Amino acid sequence: MCIFCDIVNGKIPCYKIYENNNAMAFLDLANDSNGHTLVIPKKHFKNILDCDKNVLCDVIEMVQKISKHYVDDCGADGVDIFNANGEIAEQSVFHLHFHILPRYKNDGMQVYPTLKKNVLSLEELADKLKIK
Amino acid sequence: MCIFCDIVNGKIPCYKIYENNNAMAFLDLANDSNGHTLVIPKKHFKNILDCDKNVLCDVIEMVQKISKHYVDDCGADGVDIFNANGEIAEQSVFHLHFHILPRYKNDGMQVYPTLKKNVLSLEELADKLKIK
Repeated sequence: MCIFCDIVNGKIPCYKIYENNNAMAFLDLANDSNGHTLVIPKKHFKNILDCDKNVLCDVIEMVQKISKHYVDDCGADGVDIFNANGEIAEQSVFHLHFHILPRYKNDGMQVYPTLKKNVLSLEELADKLKIK
Repeated sequence: MCIFCDIVNGKIPCYKIYENNNAMAFLDLANDSNGHTLVIPKKHFKNILDCDKNVLCDVIEMVQKISKHYVDDCGADGVDIFNANGEIAEQSVFHLHFHILPRYKNDGMQVYPTLKKNVLSLEELADKLKIK
């Protein structure tokens, strides 16, 4: 049982913005900014870590389409896009979803997080993380 | 003049994690979490609003590849992905980039923003934003 699958199959209603064969965009009930939207694949994947590549492309293309619509046609001045993968990363619904947070002049929001700086140096990190 | 174009063409050094023909991943000097990484297209686009669709797919596929590498091989327990589009949305370098913020158990970070709730209802917003 997955609430986003139930939205896709119509068992749970949503404020739908757009859909095509592979993906769907609807308003997030959290309503964190005017036009706070989720874009999801219709097929169930937990998050970006297990998502099929082609499906991921379909989803990001819809994120782009909706973002352009909000900026070009609906008065937004920009958009932030956020996607959490894993419980520790604050993912709460385990069906892949990208948040679109439309931004407006003087909206007073800060979306990019203020984080504690970590203690490892960039040199150490690059050595550890590089794909050889 | 674009600093990310200069990173792509080697004029500015970076802590490179991975690259292929179309995209590149390197550590963000901001170093906001252990492994804070940027993924960019090699070709210049300002942000998601003007990016070529195929290039956007290449970029999100690299975001996925690096995210899986960090979780599967490098000890991360999840990843947050963030992308800002437009100055008002806190974009600071105007060459499309996705942030990967690796997350770790007990890292004490909060990445998803705490936002003021807006005043428009979901009904009003859905009516205004829907793609007919």
